[in-house]
Amino acid sequence: MYAPLHPDPALPPVRINLYSDTQTRPTAAMKAAMVEAEVGDEQAGLDPTVNALCERMASLLGKEAAMFLPSGTMCNQIAIITHCRPGDEILAHGTSHILTSEGGGAAALAGAQITPLPGPGGQFDAAAVRAALRPRTRNAPPQALLEVEQTANAGGGTIWPLAVLNEVAAIAQEAGLATHMDGARLMNAVVATGIPAREMAAGYDSVWLDFTKGLGAPLGAVLAGSRDFIDAAWKWKQRMGGAMRQAGICAAACLYALDHHVDRLAEDHDNAKALARGLAQIPGLTVEAPETNLVFFDTRGTGLTAAELYARVRSHGVNFSISSTHRGRACTHLDVTRAQIDEALQVIRAALA
Amino acid sequence: MYAPLHPDPALPPVRINLYSDTQTRPTAAMKAAMVEAEVGDEQAGLDPTVNALCERMASLLGKEAAMFLPSGTMCNQIAIITHCRPGDEILAHGTSHILTSEGGGAAALAGAQITPLPGPGGQFDAAAVRAALRPRTRNAPPQALLEVEQTANAGGGTIWPLAVLNEVAAIAQEAGLATHMDGARLMNAVVATGIPAREMAAGYDSVWLDFTKGLGAPLGAVLAGSRDFIDAAWKWKQRMGGAMRQAGICAAACLYALDHHVDRLAEDHDNAKALARGLAQIPGLTVEAPETNLVFFDTRGTGLTAAELYARVRSHGVNFSISSTHRGRACTHLDVTRAQIDEALQVIRAALA
Amino acid sequence: MYAPLHPDPALPPVRINLYSDTQTRPTAAMKAAMVEAEVGDEQAGLDPTVNALCERMASLLGKEAAMFLPSGTMCNQIAIITHCRPGDEILAHGTSHILTSEGGGAAALAGAQITPLPGPGGQFDAAAVRAALRPRTRNAPPQALLEVEQTANAGGGTIWPLAVLNEVAAIAQEAGLATHMDGARLMNAVVATGIPAREMAAGYDSVWLDFTKGLGAPLGAVLAGSRDFIDAAWKWKQRMGGAMRQAGICAAACLYALDHHVDRLAEDHDNAKALARGLAQIPGLTVEAPETNLVFFDTRGTGLTAAELYARVRSHGVNFSISSTHRGRACTHLDVTRAQIDEALQVIRAALA
Amino acid sequence: MYAPLHPDPALPPVRINLYSDTQTRPTAAMKAAMVEAEVGDEQAGLDPTVNALCERMASLLGKEAAMFLPSGTMCNQIAIITHCRPGDEILAHGTSHILTSEGGGAAALAGAQITPLPGPGGQFDAAAVRAALRPRTRNAPPQALLEVEQTANAGGGTIWPLAVLNEVAAIAQEAGLATHMDGARLMNAVVATGIPAREMAAGYDSVWLDFTKGLGAPLGAVLAGSRDFIDAAWKWKQRMGGAMRQAGICAAACLYALDHHVDRLAEDHDNAKALARGLAQIPGLTVEAPETNLVFFDTRGTGLTAAELYARVRSHGVNFSISSTHRGRACTHLDVTRAQIDEALQVIRAALA
Repeated sequence: MYAPLHPDPALPPVRINLYSDTQTRPTAAMKAAMVEAEVGDEQAGLDPTVNALCERMASLLGKEAAMFLPSGTMCNQIAIITHCRPGDEILAHGTSHILTSEGGGAAALAGAQITPLPGPGGQFDAAAVRAALRPRTRNAPPQALLEVEQTANAGGGTIWPLAVLNEVAAIAQEAGLATHMDGARLMNAVVATGIPAREMAAGYDSVWLDFTKGLGAPLGAVLAGSRDFIDAAWKWKQRMGGAMRQAGICAAACLYALDHHVDRLAEDHDNAKALARGLAQIPGLTVEAPETNLVFFDTRGTGLTAAELYARVRSHGVNFSISSTHRGRACTHLDVTRAQIDEALQVIRAALA
Repeated sequence: MYAPLHPDPALPPVRINLYSDTQTRPTAAMKAAMVEAEVGDEQAGLDPTVNALCERMASLLGKEAAMFLPSGTMCNQIAIITHCRPGDEILAHGTSHILTSEGGGAAALAGAQITPLPGPGGQFDAAAVRAALRPRTRNAPPQALLEVEQTANAGGGTIWPLAVLNEVAAIAQEAGLATHMDGARLMNAVVATGIPAREMAAGYDSVWLDFTKGLGAPLGAVLAGSRDFIDAAWKWKQRMGGAMRQAGICAAACLYALDHHVDRLAEDHDNAKALARGLAQIPGLTVEAPETNLVFFDTRGTGLTAAELYARVRSHGVNFSISSTHRGRACTHLDVTRAQIDEALQVIRAALA
Repeated sequence: MYAPLHPDPALPPVRINLYSDTQTRPTAAMKAAMVEAEVGDEQAGLDPTVNALCERMASLLGKEAAMFLPSGTMCNQIAIITHCRPGDEILAHGTSHILTSEGGGAAALAGAQITPLPGPGGQFDAAAVRAALRPRTRNAPPQALLEVEQTANAGGGTIWPLAVLNEVAAIAQEAGLATHMDGARLMNAVVATGIPAREMAAGYDSVWLDFTKGLGAPLGAVLAGSRDFIDAAWKWKQRMGGAMRQAGICAAACLYALDHHVDRLAEDHDNAKALARGLAQIPGLTVEAPETNLVFFDTRGTGLTAAELYARVRSHGVNFSISSTHRGRACTHLDVTRAQIDEALQVIRAALA
Repeated sequence: MYAPLHPDPALPPVRINLYSDTQTRPTAAMKAAMVEAEVGDEQAGLDPTVNALCERMASLLGKEAAMFLPSGTMCNQIAIITHCRPGDEILAHGTSHILTSEGGGAAALAGAQITPLPGPGGQFDAAAVRAALRPRTRNAPPQALLEVEQTANAGGGTIWPLAVLNEVAAIAQEAGLATHMDGARLMNAVVATGIPAREMAAGYDSVWLDFTKGLGAPLGAVLAGSRDFIDAAWKWKQRMGGAMRQAGICAAACLYALDHHVDRLAEDHDNAKALARGLAQIPGLTVEAPETNLVFFDTRGTGLTAAELYARVRSHGVNFSISSTHRGRACTHLDVTRAQIDEALQVIRAALA
């Protein structure tokens, strides 16, 4: 997912930001909560707001303990390095964020090789896991971890069915692998299905939630697991520099988001459906039916690449992200209203007219 | 440096916090600046406040470019992994933070071995560097990086003289090593000596400043170096999860600190001197003359360990940190007033009476 | 590729060993050459026989320099760690030895992630490389190395056409990647095609040859590349413990093999063809046409797994290796005569009757 | 320890080689044993000679299991990476081989930081271990392994007293550390003291012996430990490329050495004492009293550096190794006779006359 970096002074400001839910800005009410937060030295365990967030998240995700980190990527990297030893193998989908978008961190930091599993919509099934498992030999890398991404971003923001989540986790654990859920957008899946987060994460030894996407906080993610897992993970939080100081000021935004920005994800999902319907009516565009807040579309039928379409609409203050040569992604979030969806559709329609 | 973690409900709250300048809390004015900050997606280069902070810091430190990170430890770890390849050797003082307090991160993440150099006050000199350098052979680890810590925390908060900084850097660079300055408390040295930061850092390929210590911001540090260095460092910021989103809300606190909390470090230094004078008058305590805001003292003459003295004063709402069996450290900062220094001295005096 | 480890005393000795060309035993003449070798301290550069082997191999492979190592796996691992930095990405075939059979060493030791490329016969083509290349971004792992395996063992002992070798190397190098050839069985390809080794390796920055396979030496492999590459690789030879002492005694066997065991690989290829023809006539077996000395066959039509067939023939003193549930591999080499091929066919035929 | 690499054609051949016992050449009888060895595929567990050597060494060293490796450095590196996880700390002497002469491998491969302990003669004592141990905190690297080197090469070839070996091991194990003995020249200590190897190694979880030093084999070392340890170590033997093929041909030399070259180490020790006595009588040379086969001497009193003295004697066909600017090391071994000791003394005496 990328777009030109750094503001380009030659372009008008972005009016309608469909690039990513990572670009939500903290609201005034959220900032008020931040200002009022009681804070302390987080890495000494003395920040009451961070402590409160971690307790609440452990409960929400159904785990014994949790830790606050500056980003979701660090949640993934610390989980991987805590679960794996150098030379271990990770099973994950071929489009997973840990494989494509974390700079090769699994290999660089944990010394672990990711084996890409196949499957539509960014998901694999029991058969794919069974096919990937092999007997332990001296020659082959030990298989140590299975990872899923809920929702599956590059797969289309799709929601793993609970039965599949449980089944692939059970197969992995029976084979001696640990299990990890990248829950960057887990709450989108929760709101869309009504299934509680702790139920979705039940089969997973570790799971994390990102607060900077649809939940609208400026920074922060929380990784949860067993007490032993979190204790071991703390060593890596220190080593990598994820241990912070008065981080409660940011954790307060996360607590605010849990109170005020979860249920409203349903609006984003409605907006995504509206956007998808509108895009599907534009000649030349093929649209993947959205399950949550991500709308992927193919530009091949328009004769344009995704980047060419981007350039046309960007000049009118609308953006989206470019997933591959002919695939674009539009993302709805709390800074995008229904009216803006309609306006964006007009801009895109005009660009392709 | 440690103290019991997590608030102990059996103890009174800490009234006078001499534990560490990392425990300063953001002021109301600083928080107001945070609320007003214009923010964007930091890892896309779109956060104007982060961009402004990085430009200002590059200029202050006399380097081409800079990057914002959630902690000083991450500044050190990213600098090390950018300068070194696995198997390289780092020359640093035996009491340096990278050796003692970053969880073995240099070896764990960068695969680099730190060779501890000797010298009083957390500093080594040209002779020590020359003695440590050796010819390049196939057997010995390649020497790749020299590191200094300004001020030298565990050395007593001492200030490296400019001439020594320049001399050891020149020797290292002549031998083909890169140079790195851990400037966690660099501004304390700047304020105490009047020598500009850029001058102190001139011999160093990379340098960073922490905003969560005497400068009073809730989180954040800035690493600076050449444009090529910062470009390479960005890969590691992504990999380790130091890339954030609307981080400008925190960068705004750092900008505020640059404007309002630098000059006032002189007060902390005055308070440290007053504290040292007072402690020196207490029978049984031996005090290291403070050069900045850190006051180290030895409890041997009192018949108590540092932990035993800690326990006595902590029960009266005063704390400090324990450096080793008989060595304690009291730290002055913006949340400690001169009146509190006097009161703390009374408490300590009473505890030893 | 595996078979039950350790000699099983309940089984008769192996009379006809089709398990692997790694199991060739040194001949009397080869051992005589070993005994007569002049030796010295190899890691001090003082072993004249090792030095002679390295010079000869550099010339044979068309590179500036070469180094002797105890195994082919170490050649691969040292090449990878010399070409790559932690976090880099390697493009290699999905069935490549470095991916499947080196214990995850690329990630464990070099911190590099291998991206498996698709293609029949253990080979990929220009289109597959182009599809795998992507623009350099901060998020994605930097693509640093392309690897090919000549011959492609798990692909069926197939021979990469020279044009493809050159084309994929050129595309990779244009994109800034280094190129590496795993030439474990390179001389089989050379003998089968008549194309000189140096020509096959011309597009590759590093290449190695194993002497313990069809060439029949007891241990040793030689890695070649530019002088700078070999100089850098020596650091890793020392670190990993691949630097040896009077290794000339083993290098002498390799020199002997170059003189006496290269041309005779043609016999192994003939034997492999004869074996394949015979196997193809056995009802239920499907055979991949061999290009060199490896004969892969599928047991599905017999109603047996490869392991079940193995058990039946092993009890009559014949073995082969098990590649996957229904795929077996029979390997011809200097310890297998044409008469033994015929006898093995009889045993297999009888086992399936 | 170094001397000019590669044979220098301008110099006469070395007649009396006091450089290192690593430079012994296999005898005719040893080579005859190699030729007669029964061999097989070592990494498949099918080499009877390797298996016999491993069983014998496990028994000799008092451990459950053992593995054959191409070098002593690989024994150390595999032991370290099997005992440690990334970020762990190793306690070892400041002059230990793993710290100074293995290319930073502990950090590069295992991600472990070595803390150098002080003490005369390459040995540390219980007090030094106790001083280095610290409470486990989130910030400090976890202390995971204590290492000793018996004999201590750079310490003067000194022999750790059994009581010290046991005491430092007990302290380490009580603190939760594993223990490892680099027994490169362990048999020299055994022969000099009459204490069995298994008794010396009793406190150590892993221990290895090098066959290429005084024992005179061309290559090979054996690492021993518990069955679980050796099983885990095999993964690293595969990953690093220490798994070989018909390695029995080399293992046979090691078995021969155990039968014929152990007791004769006493001659080397006698020769070392004679050499030391002779050197001590040369004006300007200060000699460390040898405990085994290594004789260290200081050239300061002669006005020459060690390298200058080396150059003078080398031109007469005698060499030794240069340990530091004014410290040389002469090593006795099976290729050095008593008559050569006397001749070498004449050459050195003449060089300094």
